[in-house]
Amino acid sequence: MIQVLLLVQPKKRQLEKLTKIFPQVVFTTDPSSASTAEIVLGWRAELKEVFLQNSNLKWVQAQSAGVDYLPLKEFANKKILLTNASGLHSRYIAETVTGYILLENRGLRKIIQHPGEWFEPEVLESREQTALIFGTGKIGREIGRYCRFLGMQVWGVNRHGMDDSLSDVFDHVITLADYQKLSKQLEINFLISVLPGTKATAGFFDQKMLQQCQPGYTLINVGRGSAVKERDLLNLLKIDYLRSAYLDVFEHEPLSKDSILWHHPRVFATPHISGLLPHFRQELFPLFSDNLNRYLTNRSLRNLVDLSAGY
Amino acid sequence: MIQVLLLVQPKKRQLEKLTKIFPQVVFTTDPSSASTAEIVLGWRAELKEVFLQNSNLKWVQAQSAGVDYLPLKEFANKKILLTNASGLHSRYIAETVTGYILLENRGLRKIIQHPGEWFEPEVLESREQTALIFGTGKIGREIGRYCRFLGMQVWGVNRHGMDDSLSDVFDHVITLADYQKLSKQLEINFLISVLPGTKATAGFFDQKMLQQCQPGYTLINVGRGSAVKERDLLNLLKIDYLRSAYLDVFEHEPLSKDSILWHHPRVFATPHISGLLPHFRQELFPLFSDNLNRYLTNRSLRNLVDLSAGY
Repeated sequence: MIQVLLLVQPKKRQLEKLTKIFPQVVFTTDPSSASTAEIVLGWRAELKEVFLQNSNLKWVQAQSAGVDYLPLKEFANKKILLTNASGLHSRYIAETVTGYILLENRGLRKIIQHPGEWFEPEVLESREQTALIFGTGKIGREIGRYCRFLGMQVWGVNRHGMDDSLSDVFDHVITLADYQKLSKQLEINFLISVLPGTKATAGFFDQKMLQQCQPGYTLINVGRGSAVKERDLLNLLKIDYLRSAYLDVFEHEPLSKDSILWHHPRVFATPHISGLLPHFRQELFPLFSDNLNRYLTNRSLRNLVDLSAGY
Repeated sequence: MIQVLLLVQPKKRQLEKLTKIFPQVVFTTDPSSASTAEIVLGWRAELKEVFLQNSNLKWVQAQSAGVDYLPLKEFANKKILLTNASGLHSRYIAETVTGYILLENRGLRKIIQHPGEWFEPEVLESREQTALIFGTGKIGREIGRYCRFLGMQVWGVNRHGMDDSLSDVFDHVITLADYQKLSKQLEINFLISVLPGTKATAGFFDQKMLQQCQPGYTLINVGRGSAVKERDLLNLLKIDYLRSAYLDVFEHEPLSKDSILWHHPRVFATPHISGLLPHFRQELFPLFSDNLNRYLTNRSLRNLVDLSAGY
């Protein structure tokens, strides 16, 4: 019998369904099975050592899109497969980013900061704007689709440049290498990062990289906080290089209660909520069930993480 | 010579263009011409009596979509034509309403009210929601188009019911009379009013009318404040009948600094900004120029207001 440890609590109906579809599998929600399970749905930091000493462990299905909190190197050494929940969060992140953009364009950020004041804030024309999206995977594409609906130009940055799957959404796509050696600053209105937390992205957005775009733009980070050097960001806000910043992720999370980022007049900070799903389990369990079927029939898993790349 | 008083200050280039296109017209920006001008672009409350004693006055082009602040009855008596700027503001109002909806659905309203707190707010699924839009003119249709993009069901309420021009955007349209005598409460998530400020709409949304929909919805008012009885609204918030309210317009404007509506935990108040245009004059002057051409050639004016209906 194959043992599966479910660290995301299923609803009664979901567990019954899994048990019925996979009679050859024993499902448990008891964390003490961390030492014996072959497959794990979800993760708990405090069980890390137990998992890594469990020689039966073959596959971990993460409940998130980003997997920077998992021991990727040890997984690689032990040939433990890792799949993520990429795709489930895309539309919600796009909605959150669209909310940020409309807060900025409709002058609502300033209104929120001045309750009780009757004034006309500056408003911006979405149809004259350009969004530059770092990361053109499922999340970046979905954000691009929303920006396009608002009438914006949409540019992308990724590792390989434009391809057929991107041309519906993106007007231009350049590579990260191109971006690093631009001969001329880009003229954009929103720089939106969905970059994952990997070695390659750590501290990528420093003062120099943030100044590859002309002054006056708004930074949105819904990827990982490690990609943006917060000290450089604050400097650029101070000298009015950046118009504003909408940050959902931070160098250290949870962001401390007394951080300037919560109260800075041109920063809108949110507690890592951009991808929250209204019905998380309802969407995660079908993905897991499909992958479990693939695993049991020796087919390739969906959303397999490249452990050396980190996403 | 026909005299036109411009109470919306044109840019130099705009004035030159008008002067060139209409050599038979004298354009002035001097308010003392209120007593002699045949045509006025814009309005000033303090000039009302002068305007009404000016027997040359034939046509007023308002700079707003709503015209409740103008002396409609006197205009009707004196056969003064009134046109509004309907259409210019639609997309901006739709953007603002979409911003409100995403603030609610992504849990941002609660985050804004608790800066510094790291928590998971409740999030809502746009694709499971229904928006009920009161008013199916240009503004209501544009809001509907945005709601549809978010994946919502879109219902409308107007005076005449569904017609061909509405079926692209609205799943259902009922009449105001139908709404008033519903046999069963409607199950909706957002009630969005773009109703103008007229005799027929004054106090329309009282406790009874707001309870024609099932409890738990969010009220959005971007029409006129006179349509919503604020006392009844506050009562319904108090008894948790309404989930929340996003109000851009009020019974008395400007809303006083100490109004509970600025600080109520479930109200998001904004200072009548939903329709602000980034480039107002750039859009208003072409509309006015076209209408002036129609006026001079005895053709019917665009955006003519029905003075007895009030919009």
